[in-house]
Amino acid sequence: MSILISGTVALDSIHTPTAIHNELLGGSASYAGLAAALDAPVHLCSIVGRDFPEEHRSLLSGHGIDLANIEFAEGRTFRWTGRYHENMNHRETLDVSIDVLEKFAPELTPEAAAAKVVLLANMSPDNQLAVLDQVTGTPFVIADSMDLWINIAREGLLAVMKRVDLFVINEDEARMFTESSNLVSAGWRLMEMGPKHVVVKKGEHGALLFGPGKFFAAPAYPLTGVEDPTGAGDSFAGGLAGSVAASGRAPEFADLAAGVVRGSVLASFTCEAFGVKRIASVSKEEAAARMAEFRGYTSW
Amino acid sequence: MSILISGTVALDSIHTPTAIHNELLGGSASYAGLAAALDAPVHLCSIVGRDFPEEHRSLLSGHGIDLANIEFAEGRTFRWTGRYHENMNHRETLDVSIDVLEKFAPELTPEAAAAKVVLLANMSPDNQLAVLDQVTGTPFVIADSMDLWINIAREGLLAVMKRVDLFVINEDEARMFTESSNLVSAGWRLMEMGPKHVVVKKGEHGALLFGPGKFFAAPAYPLTGVEDPTGAGDSFAGGLAGSVAASGRAPEFADLAAGVVRGSVLASFTCEAFGVKRIASVSKEEAAARMAEFRGYTSW
Repeated sequence: MSILISGTVALDSIHTPTAIHNELLGGSASYAGLAAALDAPVHLCSIVGRDFPEEHRSLLSGHGIDLANIEFAEGRTFRWTGRYHENMNHRETLDVSIDVLEKFAPELTPEAAAAKVVLLANMSPDNQLAVLDQVTGTPFVIADSMDLWINIAREGLLAVMKRVDLFVINEDEARMFTESSNLVSAGWRLMEMGPKHVVVKKGEHGALLFGPGKFFAAPAYPLTGVEDPTGAGDSFAGGLAGSVAASGRAPEFADLAAGVVRGSVLASFTCEAFGVKRIASVSKEEAAARMAEFRGYTSW
Repeated sequence: MSILISGTVALDSIHTPTAIHNELLGGSASYAGLAAALDAPVHLCSIVGRDFPEEHRSLLSGHGIDLANIEFAEGRTFRWTGRYHENMNHRETLDVSIDVLEKFAPELTPEAAAAKVVLLANMSPDNQLAVLDQVTGTPFVIADSMDLWINIAREGLLAVMKRVDLFVINEDEARMFTESSNLVSAGWRLMEMGPKHVVVKKGEHGALLFGPGKFFAAPAYPLTGVEDPTGAGDSFAGGLAGSVAASGRAPEFADLAAGVVRGSVLASFTCEAFGVKRIASVSKEEAAARMAEFRGYTSW
């Protein structure tokens, strides 16, 4: 089954304690698309400017990703500059240039609109709703978000949550959104806000999956070092979506649990190098080997 | 197989945002002993003062715990007063009265010395070494510790680590001890310091187990609320030790992984009420039911 992924495609400049890299391919849709493409055909829906480098375009299409739903618009591509501090767990945004993102009005091709799995990767809730309004049939819909939208577009985000099968959010955002310091309690409160399932991403501590009367917890793949965590959460969501699509059926809770593990594994690759470098070079065999390792790490 | 558990037996006064309870039964050996007693016969080795309440003594012996290795000495029992803040994740020590603990010189009965599993629960490394010097045969030895000993008795702690099969430490202490912000890397560095296995306890995020070339991760049991986390780490260590003893053989890595799950499950009970109240009332059936639930929460 094919996947429609809508989100941002960006040029990222990343500072870590050991290095600076400028104008790397970034954005939620890029990371999610590359992760999902390991498991299923991907339609990517986004907007970039005329300055978007040909090498980035060919990297995405080289992974078999359909770019027919990406608008190449007048103006500059969305840019993000961020800095990670010593422990790599917290980052600071140094600069954001929205540019073409401001006029993003997603329009889907019939093939993309008919995808059986839809991932609304991190972008404004208004854009997520605009995509959702165009899908045909009854796809399995996953939405990711971030603290910015909780703060400035809460109503839109609540509208998205009511329409999705799976809502993905990170640990700090879950606590903030629900005003609960207990993460399990936060997960159940998010469920009450409308989504059929909730995933709380916890970075180095793994992820929690909540469903109707059901619960699953996965650790993170045990990396001894992180080169650049940018896009790990997006790769997680993409890996989860790809896993659901690869199963070829409407997912049961156990399929979503397997998807959470797939997401954790693909996110771990992303952390191993700057930008999309590692996730763009992972082979199916490498991903399968890490899934097998993960099985050992969680068996008792 | 029986277990020897040595550690503190204390009178705890606990302040949380919603309640204050004074002079509860506490101490690392009390929590660990009550948890382990669900799975195997326990010899408890500690020291208390003449003021130690008869009700606490009978609670312990009522769980079949052998108290022949507890010295009832002149003076007052060790007391600890602590306060938890809003999120229950961090606590502050308000008062400590060492009293009889200062003259603790463990002396083991032949039965206790011959136990096949030894848990050196949290107490001074000197006391842990004094117990270890008296054990006979080649028991499976587990040691727990805390930040205080890393700060004021590092050499003694390093000596303990070299002599144990399994060293247990919490997340913050592991990062501090190894000066590594990456917890997986911290676990492997602790392994290099001598213990055959290491467990890093992460509270609400579960626990990590490291062995020679092996790794296992377990989530925490998903509690939606925590009444009082005091003794959760001690109950974890006791549950792990009890599980190893119940298996009746020298543990393989898979047995230790099952022990980590048992520890997580028993720690979750401890968090549900003040002091030892809940861990002292858990039935074998309740513990087994929660183990079965845990299986579902970690299966994929």
